Amino acid sequence: GWVRSIRAQKEVLFLHLNDGSCLAHLQVVGTPDMGSSDLSYGSAVAVEGRLFPSAHPGQDVEFHADRLEVIGSCNAKEFPFKAKKRHTMEYSRQFPHLRARTNSFAALLRIRSQAASAIHKFFQDEGYIEVHTPVISSNDCEGAGELFQVEQISQDSGKDTKHFFDVPAFLTVSGQLQLEVMASALSRVYVFGPTFRAERSLGRRHLSEFYMVEAELAFTQQQEDVMEVIEMMVKQPTEQILALCPEDLHLFYKFVSPGHREVVEKILTSRFIRMTYTEAIQILTKNSENFQFKPEWGHDLQKEHERHLVRHCGSVPVFVTDFPKELKPFYARDNDDDKTVAAFDLLVPEVGELFGGSLREERLEILQDRLDR
Amino acid sequence: GWVRSIRAQKEVLFLHLNDGSCLAHLQVVGTPDMGSSDLSYGSAVAVEGRLFPSAHPGQDVEFHADRLEVIGSCNAKEFPFKAKKRHTMEYSRQFPHLRARTNSFAALLRIRSQAASAIHKFFQDEGYIEVHTPVISSNDCEGAGELFQVEQISQDSGKDTKHFFDVPAFLTVSGQLQLEVMASALSRVYVFGPTFRAERSLGRRHLSEFYMVEAELAFTQQQEDVMEVIEMMVKQPTEQILALCPEDLHLFYKFVSPGHREVVEKILTSRFIRMTYTEAIQILTKNSENFQFKPEWGHDLQKEHERHLVRHCGSVPVFVTDFPKELKPFYARDNDDDKTVAAFDLLVPEVGELFGGSLREERLEILQDRLDR
Repeated sequence: GWVRSIRAQKEVLFLHLNDGSCLAHLQVVGTPDMGSSDLSYGSAVAVEGRLFPSAHPGQDVEFHADRLEVIGSCNAKEFPFKAKKRHTMEYSRQFPHLRARTNSFAALLRIRSQAASAIHKFFQDEGYIEVHTPVISSNDCEGAGELFQVEQISQDSGKDTKHFFDVPAFLTVSGQLQLEVMASALSRVYVFGPTFRAERSLGRRHLSEFYMVEAELAFTQQQEDVMEVIEMMVKQPTEQILALCPEDLHLFYKFVSPGHREVVEKILTSRFIRMTYTEAIQILTKNSENFQFKPEWGHDLQKEHERHLVRHCGSVPVFVTDFPKELKPFYARDNDDDKTVAAFDLLVPEVGELFGGSLREERLEILQDRLDR
Repeated sequence: GWVRSIRAQKEVLFLHLNDGSCLAHLQVVGTPDMGSSDLSYGSAVAVEGRLFPSAHPGQDVEFHADRLEVIGSCNAKEFPFKAKKRHTMEYSRQFPHLRARTNSFAALLRIRSQAASAIHKFFQDEGYIEVHTPVISSNDCEGAGELFQVEQISQDSGKDTKHFFDVPAFLTVSGQLQLEVMASALSRVYVFGPTFRAERSLGRRHLSEFYMVEAELAFTQQQEDVMEVIEMMVKQPTEQILALCPEDLHLFYKFVSPGHREVVEKILTSRFIRMTYTEAIQILTKNSENFQFKPEWGHDLQKEHERHLVRHCGSVPVFVTDFPKELKPFYARDNDDDKTVAAFDLLVPEVGELFGGSLREERLEILQDRLDR
C-alpha cells in the first residue's frame, strides 16, 4: 500500500496505509527502527506481519509489522498532494497522473465501477441481452453538425480523397437503430457504452465522450411498460451502490454535496410521478410570471420549467408523457388524439432530463405516410 | 414471440414461437380457427392462455392458447430466411437487419452477452475496479500508421485548420497508460471496452473495432502473479458460459465448429504450461526443417511456430515467458541476465496469441537510461 500518514513515537511507529481498495486506511504498528528517510508520505511499502483485532474504537483491525520495506520512495515535498489536507478538484485536475491517490477521486472511481456493475446486473437479471453496438458508424442519427468523423491518418502529406470505410464514418451518437433491429429478434436488449457529441460547449451538461444506457423492448403496449423499467433501472442500481459503497458515498455527502443524501433517499422511497405534457403546461402556466420563457403548449420545456415541475412534485422524479408530436422524433407512436405521441421524458431533481423514451410507431402505413412528407 | 413453424391439423393448430431469450421454441397448442392468412412464418403474435407440463419428450412445457392475435405480419415469401432451413453466415450477412432472427446469430449474441457479463464478474469478484478509459485520446501508443483520427465534421466547405481538441485526437488502441496511472492508486484495475486499429486488412485476425480486456496490478513481483490472473480469467468466464448457455453452445459444437467442445474441455481441465522463450526456441529448432521461417533466438515467433508449440504441449495453452528485450516494449522489466525481460505471451489452440503481459520496469534509473537512448 501507499503511506498516508506516519506517527513515530519513542517505542512504536504508527503508519496509515491505503491500497485504493477502500476509503479506510489500515493502521500498521511497527518498531521505531523501521523508520527511514525513504519512508515518507506517498511512498509505497511492503509490510509483513499479522492482522489483529483492534482495541481502538475507530478501526476493527490493525496490522502488527514484523518487516517493512519501502519499495517505491516519494519526495513528499514535491508530491502535489499533502497529508491530511483537502485539495480542490480544480487543483487535483492539474495532476491527472496522481489525482487517483486522493480520497475523493478514488472514491469516485470506486463508485463509478460499482454503478456500471449494478447497471449491468439490473439488465441481466431482467433477461436483457447486452449488445455491443458499433462505435464507428456510417449513420448520422441526429444531423451532421455534432458528429465526430473518423478517418485513418493520412500516410502522405496530401489528403486522402478516399474514405477508409468507402463511406464517411462517424463516432456513434446512439445505438438505437442497431438495438431496434436486435429487439425485433431478441425481445430485450441494451447497450451501456461510450457515446460521442462534437459540441463546442464547456458546460457541466456536455461532454464529447460519455457513457449512456439505451434499451429496447419488444412487445410493449403502453408508455407505462417502458417507464416501469426506467424507474426500476434508477432505483435498483442506486440501492446497490448505497449498500456496497457506504463510506465512499459518505465522503461525498460530507464534503462535496451536502444534502444529497436526502435527495437520493426521497428518490428511492417515492413512486415516480406520471403526468402528461398537457398537465405539465397547465401547472407551469399558473406560475407563468416567474419564468423567463413563457410556457406554451407546443413548445419544448425549458430548464426553468423542468426545475419548477420537479419542485411542484415535491422533489420526486416525474415522467412527463404524451408530448406534442412536433417535439419528438418521427418514430414515436401516434396517440389517438392526432396531436400527441407516446413519448416521455424523466425529470429528476438537480439534473433535469435524465431519460427519454417512446413507444415506437409500428404501423407501417403511418410511418410511410410520415416519411413521404 | 415470432412464429418459427406452423402445423395445422384438423382439430388442432401447433405453433412454435421464439422470443429470442433462448434457443428453444415454445410449443403453442391452439384451435384451427386461430389460423389466418396473416399467421405465417416470421410473423409476430400475442398469445393468451396457460402453460402446462408437456407429455411430449422433446419439451418440458407447452402453452395452450385461448386467444391468438397477429400483431406483426410477415410476407414469408419475401422474408429472406426460411423455416427449418440452415442458412450460411455469408448469406445471412446480407440481411443485417434480420439475421438476429436466425438461430446461429441469436445464439452468438446471447453467448457474447454472457461472456461480457462473466468477464466483468470475474474482475469484480477479484476486487478489480473497472475504469472507463477514454476512447478519444491524444496519445498514439503504438506509432501513427494504424490510428484513426477524430475531428468534428467541418461546418463549412473549407477544411478547419484548428483541431477540435486543440491537439490531434485519435481512437484509443490501448487503455494501458491510463490504467497504469490508476493501478498506482487503486492497486487493481481493468477495462473491457472498444479498441480500434486502422489496419487495411480483411483477414480473420483484424478488425477496425473490437473489444479488449486490459488489466493492471500493483505490487506484482513475478510474471507468475500476472499469468495466474490470466489463467483464471480464461477459465472462470468460460466455465460460466458453459454453465449458462449449454443449448446455444451445443448449436455451435454441432453445426459450426465440430470438435470444439473437446478443445474447450482440455483448456478448462489442464493447468496452462509455462515455458521460457529460450526453451520454446529449443523445441522449435528440433523441428526446423518443417518451418517456412527458421526459428532463431532473438526473432519473434511466427504463426507456424506458435501452432507447433501449442501442439507440442498437447493442445494445452502455453505461456511463453522471458522474451528477448528487443522483442518487447521498453517498459517491460529487465531480467538479471541482461538479455531478456519479464514479458510473456499466452498461446492457445486455434487462435495463437490470446494475451500478452509483462512486469512493468519500476526502477527509475533503468527506465531513464532506456529513454535516453
